[in-house]
Amino acid sequence: MTAEIVPLPRKTPTLDPMLALTAPGMNSVNAVILDRMQSEIPLIPALAGHLISGGGKRLRPMLTLAGAELVGYNGTRHHKLAAAVEFIHTATLLHDDVVDGSEMRRGKAAANIIFGNPATVLVGDFLFSRSFELMTEDGSLKVLKILSNASAVIAEGEVDQLTAQRRIETSEERYLSIIGAKTAALFAAASRIAAVVAECSEREEQALDDYGRNLGVAFQLVDDAIDYDSDAAQMGKDRGDDFREGKMTLPVILAYARGSEEERKFWQAAILGHRTSDADLEQAIALIAKHGALEATRDRARHFAERAIDAISIFPANKARAAMAEAALFAVARGY
Amino acid sequence: MTAEIVPLPRKTPTLDPMLALTAPGMNSVNAVILDRMQSEIPLIPALAGHLISGGGKRLRPMLTLAGAELVGYNGTRHHKLAAAVEFIHTATLLHDDVVDGSEMRRGKAAANIIFGNPATVLVGDFLFSRSFELMTEDGSLKVLKILSNASAVIAEGEVDQLTAQRRIETSEERYLSIIGAKTAALFAAASRIAAVVAECSEREEQALDDYGRNLGVAFQLVDDAIDYDSDAAQMGKDRGDDFREGKMTLPVILAYARGSEEERKFWQAAILGHRTSDADLEQAIALIAKHGALEATRDRARHFAERAIDAISIFPANKARAAMAEAALFAVARGY
Repeated sequence: MTAEIVPLPRKTPTLDPMLALTAPGMNSVNAVILDRMQSEIPLIPALAGHLISGGGKRLRPMLTLAGAELVGYNGTRHHKLAAAVEFIHTATLLHDDVVDGSEMRRGKAAANIIFGNPATVLVGDFLFSRSFELMTEDGSLKVLKILSNASAVIAEGEVDQLTAQRRIETSEERYLSIIGAKTAALFAAASRIAAVVAECSEREEQALDDYGRNLGVAFQLVDDAIDYDSDAAQMGKDRGDDFREGKMTLPVILAYARGSEEERKFWQAAILGHRTSDADLEQAIALIAKHGALEATRDRARHFAERAIDAISIFPANKARAAMAEAALFAVARGY
Repeated sequence: MTAEIVPLPRKTPTLDPMLALTAPGMNSVNAVILDRMQSEIPLIPALAGHLISGGGKRLRPMLTLAGAELVGYNGTRHHKLAAAVEFIHTATLLHDDVVDGSEMRRGKAAANIIFGNPATVLVGDFLFSRSFELMTEDGSLKVLKILSNASAVIAEGEVDQLTAQRRIETSEERYLSIIGAKTAALFAAASRIAAVVAECSEREEQALDDYGRNLGVAFQLVDDAIDYDSDAAQMGKDRGDDFREGKMTLPVILAYARGSEEERKFWQAAILGHRTSDADLEQAIALIAKHGALEATRDRARHFAERAIDAISIFPANKARAAMAEAALFAVARGY
């Protein structure tokens, strides 16, 4: 029995093929986003626009567009739905910033810092409502079911993360369950709805769901690694945010599991919020490096990225599939 | 030309006929609410249950049930939809408590005080998502359109209220626009969807919408009066909350409009938050009494209650119509 070895591309994977593939559709999606974030209450577009025009990658709507390309869908229904996906994401970011008391988002002051918590919560609610208006206008009950379920799962994941916060005993399994809900559920839904509008088979729908879900897990793993990576390009959030908030992410879970008794005492104190200085963060980064926890986190991410790539192997090899595969590899490699 | 004078009932109007009318259906609605607020994340039912089992009147789902009785609907679809309406309302209450920094709600500590702002925001999001799952299960795109639009309008109204906060120049017209959005839109939608599931004519749908909208305005006006009514039975929130938060409600708008230059200086300082002591609150209550602003607010409420009653006069006189009419009068009279 021989296994075929698929060589990884020699050059560093980028998001460029994905961006090129989805550029025309993203113009339409962006037009819907700008149009539908408007309101007669001026504070709403001001606050929403601060985040929406703030340089996010719009990866989730891009997944809907790429999925549509992959399955050869020729219509335009998915533009509105991709905008709905981005609105759900934007609403959760606004609420996350309130929940975490964030100071920075995408390299600038977070909305809650500029506009205050009350307006940030309410504009999140507005965008969330708008997303359901957009879906209702499209009229697919199947899409509504997928995205309303994903939204409930995201909220459950966020609450679960809150419950795990400052709990050093959080396991890798629990962590994977949290990021599967808070991040990967929307990646999965964004991908799956492309198959729904294109009226694909259940098997194809599931394949796109699997692609998105695994990609989402990989993405979040690397996000969480970057927060402890002293070499990583800045992501626009403050390095060490997770550390100071006592969030149990995989680099910490692994460094704690692999650490000595003395190191574990450090982690216990740090996660409880008793060690939050710059020197403490440096020590955390050193311990994570000592135990290879960042490489291990990226290795886990690579595993999920490979599952994402294999999930879409049931589709014919075309430009869209290649772009989506490279996006999965990019998710793992970015930040170096 | 003679006008028929309809005498008001001699006894104090109550919600009892409405409660009796909707009691059997409310059992089903309550079962859906309890079932669908569950989650594998224990904090979610704990927090949601704190508010949901906390003795709210469930007036909004009751409107859906009463409307269904009014139009002779015999099915059960409206039970799930009434639960969806209550979930939207509960989500907005949770977010309101975070936005206002409330300490009390329905006579006990507000959820944000017990569970913290982060969990309160997120469980609100969960219930909001659940409401859309319930609507999607029902499958009426018309209902989805009505309730997703109402949700967006509620959020707009809340943001608008935030913008008007601490602004003494807020007019009665602006105030009516705010409560029309933040409160009356959901009353209207809750009533209207009864006509939708019963497949009534557009005219009947609109009549139920008008009933709910006017009732909602009347209800909010009286809520806002009670906050300054020293004789009023306690509503479970702290009296004077609106005053201390600098909310521009009709009693203040009228007392300011009718006040002397000196009184206006007091109001300007108070609404800006420079006069928040108990003595200041007593002075505010005295000024409102001096200018008859509470009676005027209740008179305005009576006007809207009468419009609500007249709106449903197109339906045959039956037990449901009588109960709904008395509910409107109750909305005006309550708290005395």
